[in-house]
Amino acid sequence: MELKQKIREIKDFPQKGVCFKDITTLLKDSQAFKYSIKSLAELVAEKKPDVIVGPEARGFIIGAPLAYELGIGFIPARKPGKLPYKTIEAQYKLEYGSDIIQMHVDAITPGQKVVIADDLLATGGTIFSTVELVERLKGEIVAIAFLIELTYLNGRENLSKYDVHSIVKY
Amino acid sequence: MELKQKIREIKDFPQKGVCFKDITTLLKDSQAFKYSIKSLAELVAEKKPDVIVGPEARGFIIGAPLAYELGIGFIPARKPGKLPYKTIEAQYKLEYGSDIIQMHVDAITPGQKVVIADDLLATGGTIFSTVELVERLKGEIVAIAFLIELTYLNGRENLSKYDVHSIVKY
Repeated sequence: MELKQKIREIKDFPQKGVCFKDITTLLKDSQAFKYSIKSLAELVAEKKPDVIVGPEARGFIIGAPLAYELGIGFIPARKPGKLPYKTIEAQYKLEYGSDIIQMHVDAITPGQKVVIADDLLATGGTIFSTVELVERLKGEIVAIAFLIELTYLNGRENLSKYDVHSIVKY
Repeated sequence: MELKQKIREIKDFPQKGVCFKDITTLLKDSQAFKYSIKSLAELVAEKKPDVIVGPEARGFIIGAPLAYELGIGFIPARKPGKLPYKTIEAQYKLEYGSDIIQMHVDAITPGQKVVIADDLLATGGTIFSTVELVERLKGEIVAIAFLIELTYLNGRENLSKYDVHSIVKY
């Protein structure tokens, strides 16, 4: 299936010069959504993950059905103030300023095999804070899976220690 | 399956006097997560929905796998500034102040059968803004499905026009 035809490109969002990949047009298409999740599942299944971790918020839309398809649990990495139990956190840089992501201290059982899933790999900066949290909780990251990869931003270089997968490449 | 045993209760979160239902302990349990989504799917399948709409952010974790299980598309209702294309919006009241939720103007094809899915029905206030948006886009709401319902808050009364389902009741 040619998934690029289902992804809408929006010029100058969220700021001038950026061509945003709008996946809502893919998600609402039953065939494209099913195919995307099944394809990601096939890429990571051989690693026999125990859980999927997805960062807020689009990581939930990819990660939760991926966990469901694989028959495993889903763990959200969230923005500050959202998780009700004790948390650990990591900071990540944005173009201007920084942001924080949190996980529950008991989200992962040490030694569990983890796949991190998100919608899009750009520079890899934001996903790296999720990687940091999973490793501090002693999860073993067996793969990182993205729906889309912007290959010209070389995000893979920041994640070269890991097995990185994507199904739509620009 | 006794799902209540998988839900963690956190006293005084997000504020004193509230007993928060923490679903992260359910989501990370492969059996409980699978059973929850399958149960919701069985409750709404007979309505033959075309799409699931889920409000940000926990609505994504329930709604996206529910759409996947039913073999239909998923549509996110999002916080302001997140959706890149033209949007419509509705305001909803919080205890202090208010918040806004948005959907893309072309998210729904008029006449599509819609199930709205979220994690928890409390007073129904926040879900009602999603209902409003779906109806302005001329979607037909065939059911509203929640993982958890706080029956003592009588949220159903605010949604009495609709077919409301939940699988864990407090």
